[in-house]
Amino acid sequence: MTTAQALEKLKTFRTASFALGHAEGMLFYDGATVAPKGSAQVRANTLGELSRMSYELTTSPEIVEALETLKADSGSLDKVTSREVELLYRDYDRTRKIPKDEYIAYSRLESESDAVWHEAKEKSDFASFEPYLQKMFDTNRRIALYIEPQKHPYDTMLDGYERGLTRESCDAFFGSLRQKLVPLIRRVCENAHKVDDAPLRRIFPVEKQRAFSEYVMDLIGIDKEHCVLGETEHPFTTDFSKYDVRITTHYHEDAVASSLYSVIHEGGHALYELHTGDELQFTAVGGGASMAMHESQSRFYENVIGRSRGFCGLIFPWLKREFAPLLDDVDEDRFYRMINKSTPSLIRTEADELTYCLHVMIRYELEKKMFDGELKARDLPAEWNRMYKEYLGVDVPDDRRGVLQDSHWADGNIGYFPSYAIGSAYGAQYKREMQKEFDFDKAVKNGEIKRINDWFEQKIWRHGRMMDPGKLFESVCGKFDPECYVEYLTNKFSEVYSL
Amino acid sequence: MTTAQALEKLKTFRTASFALGHAEGMLFYDGATVAPKGSAQVRANTLGELSRMSYELTTSPEIVEALETLKADSGSLDKVTSREVELLYRDYDRTRKIPKDEYIAYSRLESESDAVWHEAKEKSDFASFEPYLQKMFDTNRRIALYIEPQKHPYDTMLDGYERGLTRESCDAFFGSLRQKLVPLIRRVCENAHKVDDAPLRRIFPVEKQRAFSEYVMDLIGIDKEHCVLGETEHPFTTDFSKYDVRITTHYHEDAVASSLYSVIHEGGHALYELHTGDELQFTAVGGGASMAMHESQSRFYENVIGRSRGFCGLIFPWLKREFAPLLDDVDEDRFYRMINKSTPSLIRTEADELTYCLHVMIRYELEKKMFDGELKARDLPAEWNRMYKEYLGVDVPDDRRGVLQDSHWADGNIGYFPSYAIGSAYGAQYKREMQKEFDFDKAVKNGEIKRINDWFEQKIWRHGRMMDPGKLFESVCGKFDPECYVEYLTNKFSEVYSL
Repeated sequence: MTTAQALEKLKTFRTASFALGHAEGMLFYDGATVAPKGSAQVRANTLGELSRMSYELTTSPEIVEALETLKADSGSLDKVTSREVELLYRDYDRTRKIPKDEYIAYSRLESESDAVWHEAKEKSDFASFEPYLQKMFDTNRRIALYIEPQKHPYDTMLDGYERGLTRESCDAFFGSLRQKLVPLIRRVCENAHKVDDAPLRRIFPVEKQRAFSEYVMDLIGIDKEHCVLGETEHPFTTDFSKYDVRITTHYHEDAVASSLYSVIHEGGHALYELHTGDELQFTAVGGGASMAMHESQSRFYENVIGRSRGFCGLIFPWLKREFAPLLDDVDEDRFYRMINKSTPSLIRTEADELTYCLHVMIRYELEKKMFDGELKARDLPAEWNRMYKEYLGVDVPDDRRGVLQDSHWADGNIGYFPSYAIGSAYGAQYKREMQKEFDFDKAVKNGEIKRINDWFEQKIWRHGRMMDPGKLFESVCGKFDPECYVEYLTNKFSEVYSL
Repeated sequence: MTTAQALEKLKTFRTASFALGHAEGMLFYDGATVAPKGSAQVRANTLGELSRMSYELTTSPEIVEALETLKADSGSLDKVTSREVELLYRDYDRTRKIPKDEYIAYSRLESESDAVWHEAKEKSDFASFEPYLQKMFDTNRRIALYIEPQKHPYDTMLDGYERGLTRESCDAFFGSLRQKLVPLIRRVCENAHKVDDAPLRRIFPVEKQRAFSEYVMDLIGIDKEHCVLGETEHPFTTDFSKYDVRITTHYHEDAVASSLYSVIHEGGHALYELHTGDELQFTAVGGGASMAMHESQSRFYENVIGRSRGFCGLIFPWLKREFAPLLDDVDEDRFYRMINKSTPSLIRTEADELTYCLHVMIRYELEKKMFDGELKARDLPAEWNRMYKEYLGVDVPDDRRGVLQDSHWADGNIGYFPSYAIGSAYGAQYKREMQKEFDFDKAVKNGEIKRINDWFEQKIWRHGRMMDPGKLFESVCGKFDPECYVEYLTNKFSEVYSL
């Protein structure tokens, strides 16, 4: 096969692969937003079949030959194609090691497990979900061992989401974080009385919350021509190229901040996708560099921007006016403190910025133990509850607000959680870097979010997957320094609680 | 290839074919309901690629060999499989005659044309849509000639939607209908003052209309576990097996009846799909028998049930209570008359039951002329407006309310319109047959819609595509008799207008 022929093959492959991915993503998005409840089985069948087609496409001898040809002649390729070949070959090398039947069965398991989890969560019925959860862990462990038989399978999982990430680096990161944050959290708890956020639990009509979401999307600069907001149980973002990005939220009348910060969080993911380079679209180099890089954006928009004093000042007049008279007894300063009230709590996605990482650590520890065989799915509720008591001092009243709360395990995203904590920690360093170029707090206060967007677009977004995530982060911020994150949290919460 | 091997191939084919169809349908549904505006191009690319996969699948030598093997040995097959082979071979025989590039390009054209039409309709800008419309007619004409070079291409189009339908039979049907209905319409017009439907154009809040839709879906017996309602510009129904059916509507504050009758019309389509036989699912025999059979259900639920005195009596208390005080000055009898006010009008989907068929005739005549080369796309607006004046006596104020109103031509559904009229006419005969078994009007009045659903399920729905549509209709009602329809309309409107 000549290089020219191989390039032609790559082009054909790219189109087919994008189309199948688009279709799979579309079915998933529909299933999580508007599909009728009784449609899960049909969708699972179709997703299984599409994944069979993907598998056959990715491992077809002519594609492999094309990739090998291009790899051997990578010097003659343009930068994007050369990187694409590298990423595709890496992918192929993982996929080919998984037996085809296992690969297809896994796709079916994902859809079924997600559907069972939805029901189970609604009814707080762990027993019905338990066999799927066990199967999900078992299958992922087996697949990890197919991919890298010599390596600890949980390291393979971590590496799948964040290239280079290991149990060793996670242990070090979480260990130091826990050591430094726990005393701070204790001091905040002793001062809990200083912030009363009861007004945030008043009844905010859902129709108005919907309008608020649209306002917030505009405020952070989301292009609605290419991004829409849907409603779901567990908010997420998905995309089919930069030209079609979907974010989701959920509405609860008595929790206005819940939807607000879902919209900003998912909005951060969306901004990343919406600003990846034009030349990368429909190639394997499109999209975000990694999960941690993605979460570093969503968590930055949610917290470093969204929970800042400046941003609270921006949105408060709208809330006060449109939800009048609900917030008549609240002023801007109190609103900011309410938004940043820190309390050890039950639900990760609703957690404040300070205690958030403890939620992640619990999941990380449980995943490790599941992979080491120290725990079975049936042990998870009790162990979950024990750890919430130990780490956060809270009693878990039911599995709906405990082990069933997240969709990640149901969807097979095991090894993903650490990305949230690492991404959160990255944020403090982004802010430090930005401040070398402009007054970050002033920009937010003035509603100049575009300035921040432009900074990210130049430094991170437009590059897509051109660089491995660790390298990309270092090109922007230098060495990863969790201390910077600890300092950011210490300063912020000392001020909020006047410690 | 042995019969057993061929059956195995058929099974594989069925799964892949269903999955690709499911994915294509999903993308279409999403595009018409929630997708961001700027995503049309991406979707068109993916649909083009999926249609390439479908084409290759349908025409792959091993599938063709399997079908030929099974056709030769059809005596040994069970009834469903034997019919499936017949239908698949018929499909293959059409598809294989279309050059592959033409087939794929056509799928792209469909998506692009639909997107351009949406914009054009919104702006009432025919010029931007004209080249797509011309291309759509040209391509369909060319494809019809590939399929049956000896036949008039418009007959091939008609036959594609309704097996056996020809210009000759349409001309006869429409000719006699027009002759009999025009004098009746004239008498109704002379008595127009007898029915004033102004209260229906008061402002009915959209949020309440949404709740009303859910109530109506329950009333006609739609299983929401397997069917949901979405919102779109031009309502339609789509399904991915009987386990996942989607209906759509649109809401206008000043046109409460518009959404109501969209929900019932699409609800009729949904009921059909939801009750096709279990054993037919995921085979080519699943789904409705034809477009006219489908429209015969939707138009029956919309008109024969939905616009009956009994049904108006059922829904009126809900409307009066929930929208109070909007209908305080209206009683049930007036409500029924308002719902059945007949006026020559501009919009087909909003037309009353009596003048409806004239809208269809205009489209049929225009399609014939386009296929005969007597008209070009650029001539359509003027000719449309001329015919609306001639047939209905109305002046078309702009193309949005004229030639741009329907999505059918934009989506390539040329030759589809006659199905609406034939389906409407079928309805009168269904009612006549039902009345031999039970008191139809009383059943509706008592809210026993299930009785009607059960009748249709037994006679029509459960059979899916087991019979050709003409034969299926005759098995239920005997020979098609448009007189019955004329009589039904004459009786109904003579009573409404006290003629």
